[in-house]
Amino acid sequence: MIEVPTVTEDDLFGPDNLPYGVFSADGGPRRIGVRYGNHVLDLGGAAAVLDGPHRRHAALLAAPVLNPLMAAGRPVWTEVRAAVRSWLTDPGTLRLLAGRGLLPRLDDPGRPLTLHLPFEVADYVDFYASEHHAATVGRIFRPEAEPLTPNWKHLPIGYHGRAGTVVVSGTPVIRPHGQHRAPDAAAPGFGPSRRLDIEAEVGFVVGTPSPLGEPVGMAAARDHLFGVCLLNDWSARDLQAWEYRPLGPFLGKSFATSVSAWVTPLDALDGARTAPPPRSHPLLPYLDDTGGEEWGLDLRLEVLLNGQRLSGPPFAAMYWTAAQQLAHLTVNGASLRTGDLFASGTVSGPGPHERGCLLEMTWGGRDPVRLPDGTERVFLEDGDEVTLTAWAPAGAGRRIGLGEVTGRVEPARTPRSS
Amino acid sequence: MIEVPTVTEDDLFGPDNLPYGVFSADGGPRRIGVRYGNHVLDLGGAAAVLDGPHRRHAALLAAPVLNPLMAAGRPVWTEVRAAVRSWLTDPGTLRLLAGRGLLPRLDDPGRPLTLHLPFEVADYVDFYASEHHAATVGRIFRPEAEPLTPNWKHLPIGYHGRAGTVVVSGTPVIRPHGQHRAPDAAAPGFGPSRRLDIEAEVGFVVGTPSPLGEPVGMAAARDHLFGVCLLNDWSARDLQAWEYRPLGPFLGKSFATSVSAWVTPLDALDGARTAPPPRSHPLLPYLDDTGGEEWGLDLRLEVLLNGQRLSGPPFAAMYWTAAQQLAHLTVNGASLRTGDLFASGTVSGPGPHERGCLLEMTWGGRDPVRLPDGTERVFLEDGDEVTLTAWAPAGAGRRIGLGEVTGRVEPARTPRSS
Repeated sequence: MIEVPTVTEDDLFGPDNLPYGVFSADGGPRRIGVRYGNHVLDLGGAAAVLDGPHRRHAALLAAPVLNPLMAAGRPVWTEVRAAVRSWLTDPGTLRLLAGRGLLPRLDDPGRPLTLHLPFEVADYVDFYASEHHAATVGRIFRPEAEPLTPNWKHLPIGYHGRAGTVVVSGTPVIRPHGQHRAPDAAAPGFGPSRRLDIEAEVGFVVGTPSPLGEPVGMAAARDHLFGVCLLNDWSARDLQAWEYRPLGPFLGKSFATSVSAWVTPLDALDGARTAPPPRSHPLLPYLDDTGGEEWGLDLRLEVLLNGQRLSGPPFAAMYWTAAQQLAHLTVNGASLRTGDLFASGTVSGPGPHERGCLLEMTWGGRDPVRLPDGTERVFLEDGDEVTLTAWAPAGAGRRIGLGEVTGRVEPARTPRSS
Repeated sequence: MIEVPTVTEDDLFGPDNLPYGVFSADGGPRRIGVRYGNHVLDLGGAAAVLDGPHRRHAALLAAPVLNPLMAAGRPVWTEVRAAVRSWLTDPGTLRLLAGRGLLPRLDDPGRPLTLHLPFEVADYVDFYASEHHAATVGRIFRPEAEPLTPNWKHLPIGYHGRAGTVVVSGTPVIRPHGQHRAPDAAAPGFGPSRRLDIEAEVGFVVGTPSPLGEPVGMAAARDHLFGVCLLNDWSARDLQAWEYRPLGPFLGKSFATSVSAWVTPLDALDGARTAPPPRSHPLLPYLDDTGGEEWGLDLRLEVLLNGQRLSGPPFAAMYWTAAQQLAHLTVNGASLRTGDLFASGTVSGPGPHERGCLLEMTWGGRDPVRLPDGTERVFLEDGDEVTLTAWAPAGAGRRIGLGEVTGRVEPARTPRSS
């Protein structure tokens, strides 16, 4: 029996959303998929079956990864998105696609689908865009000093991370080994991290590349940004604290960064646009967004630990926007490549239940958090599973969902002798 | 008339060297080349013409980039290198290859060759492995504090850079714009960098990948490291000084990193192996190289500005070795990909004429350097051309050359309105 998807108005993955991913079934080839309710549209398969102008893009849609579609640019993204929407909202076409087996269920126990890393990551940059997060971390680590460094309100601080260890949601995270030094110790020790943490973040995925030497201004951000994912920037706080002076985080971050299997098109978030927080310092022209397009995004994140709610960080509270980050990243002439990923930094709001990492929630490990079932945590324990989810308003009282990102902590492995 | 290469015993690119690159002629396809004297062997072409066990690797050798050969692993590298050496040192084979047009001159004005970025860069990491450099920079920037941070002697400090802006030798370097703040200013200014600098470095290129979660110990370094290049990590000191707290360098480095067009196989440097400097602090077992394979490398670098010698940094003085850097980079379980590039950090020796960057040579811009022709520099001026070269002992009194890396500074471009 053919199952035709039924998607109700309050479904988080209805026709206003249509995120892209990459899936395979039964060990078969990887295919681009579009999530619709609890089903996945086989995009390349659908494009081959249906007539229309999208046929010009058949090769992009039949690729095993999103990069060729991402590289094709905004006019193609718009055209493909409109075509998919028209197919899924036309009952006859929907039945036809379901009948051809091009709309499998995501959770069919008889034929489980595997979701893969949806795009090849080129460069990965991590920003530090939440004032609440940066100020709290400053108070924890440098209680004697100003919470924010002098540059914080003048530029979106960021650094490059390891692209090769960006993994898809569901990939286990092995507790890393590394050097850490106790406050009173003369020399560092070595062993599994004892302060393993999460960072709830939002990632922005670059589609259209840009040439070396040509900055991409804020007004061009929409042409370059393909979409948005959720991201967990796993962090070993003890490794990070010992290594980060003077050149920044390295092994404390590079062991794993998890991204959601679904990339939400930027266009699906038009209903979530909002003004960013008021700017307390005047900005240089290339970052000054007063009076321009509103690049704040009203995404409501939720952090779950073993299925229990830890916090609800509000993305709308972020000081620096994706457009400002893109403008800053390229103002020195750095080029963009298709697949560049830049993340927001930990999303934290002003309230105690709006923090995006355990470092903040526990005030540097001092105050355990208590979960609804009564268990307590300071940092992550082996076996802990962390899930980030989010939704966004989509206009007319509707909402869309962002694909979740989840990962379970596996115990540290005994190192082989070198 | 066919020109058969004649390579004398003192040629820096003789049969003991045989570095790999990628070239094209007349806008034709990219081909892997092996440098021999002042000629380039067309590797894929030669492999197709000659019989032998190398035929099994024909696809790797005919690729337009080194990555497939790099991924094939050490036994294949050894086999291919031995085959190329046997071809080039056999007069009959050499004549045959020259006769087929498979040994073009590098500098034939009638048929100029273009040298390309020889490998696709996966992740780029920059270390900070010269004690002399780190201590001098510490003294310049933090005169009131200890020159080295407390972690410096316990781990090779490093950070991720931008892989997408690694460019091949000869690519012009456009002076970057960015934020900088004068010491007495209340707010940052914006404009072209006024403190544009070089960093003379050596880059190590990863061939064999490694899986997530499995550290690569020092004893396995030889199996993973394909070769060595020269690298200029162009640096805008004014951008860097303002942005780098607390997460490290970003735009001050990400506008361009130049690498030589030739990658010297690790095996060609066996004659340059030497003991690293004595370790002043005991090292954790995964970094302890006392009594093991000697990973110091006696490379003699030379820094030229507009053809005039600026300095001669000795690579043998580097405190941390490539094997230690690889072990550290992966000790947290981070995976390696083919094409990962990690650089040594600025190579500086103890003497005043052994420094690898203008920041050190001019003591932070205070004392101009005087060139042999009488001109002076504090930082780089528009039109300046910087070239790094190096040679290494190859046993029996012979030497091998590392391919040069060169770049000319172009004036900043007027930014487009955002």
